[in-house]
Amino acid sequence: MQLNDLIQSCKVDHLGIVVPDIERAAAFYRDVLGFEVGQPRELQGQGIAVTFVDFANTRVELLMPTTPESPLGDLLEEHTVNHFLQRVPQGGLHHVCYAVPDFDAVMARVHTAKLRLLGNGKPILGASGRRIVFVDPKCTGGALVELKDNG
Amino acid sequence: MQLNDLIQSCKVDHLGIVVPDIERAAAFYRDVLGFEVGQPRELQGQGIAVTFVDFANTRVELLMPTTPESPLGDLLEEHTVNHFLQRVPQGGLHHVCYAVPDFDAVMARVHTAKLRLLGNGKPILGASGRRIVFVDPKCTGGALVELKDNG
Repeated sequence: MQLNDLIQSCKVDHLGIVVPDIERAAAFYRDVLGFEVGQPRELQGQGIAVTFVDFANTRVELLMPTTPESPLGDLLEEHTVNHFLQRVPQGGLHHVCYAVPDFDAVMARVHTAKLRLLGNGKPILGASGRRIVFVDPKCTGGALVELKDNG
Repeated sequence: MQLNDLIQSCKVDHLGIVVPDIERAAAFYRDVLGFEVGQPRELQGQGIAVTFVDFANTRVELLMPTTPESPLGDLLEEHTVNHFLQRVPQGGLHHVCYAVPDFDAVMARVHTAKLRLLGNGKPILGASGRRIVFVDPKCTGGALVELKDNG
């Protein structure tokens, strides 16, 4: 695959927004923007409820904690949705997920550039069954970036 | 236009990320993800430097303040890039811009839902020459949302 093809197929998979009240946030997307927004789904074992808004070109993921302590602390460190809402009670933009076609090549460059990955630094399987990692925001210019294997 | 068509063409136009060092942030997108990232461009009169990263499906806008005080305070209130970096010195996800095909219909629903718009509440012309507004994050579930006329 040529570099140009790689670039062409690197996509914003979704944008994660942490919200204190998922029904109220969903109302903005439904009543103002006109989307159909499904019922929030609780992710077993993760302590969060999620719903997706399907835009024409990408997705917005609304995230709300459902337990006082996040079971994902080992993975996300101080970037769990719980920690986020403690810092920003009104909610806000939490992470952006980039789907990359050549995950192994990107991971090699992550290591070459000595970027720090959250958790134990190893990819895990995300909800979609694809490998994901979270890059420390200090290493991306500020944003919490999820990289997803889209190969 | 049918509701379904409206939904299909409502897009994430771009995702704005405020960064303390735009060259360093650009390096992540260039060296790790493999994008060509253009030289940052200073927006005259706005006190910010910007560069865009063109993903296959949407764009990421990297934003850095270039003046100690933002000239955009009247528009963005406490949500200028300067205010943002004071609160979050390492930078982070700042706003998301949704391009809507029927701007007037969306604005009518914004008013019906009594959502507060930043600044004087009137649309202004953005850099692309299209009408834009910023919705108070308190009214969207937490995220600072820019609505752009894409009709």
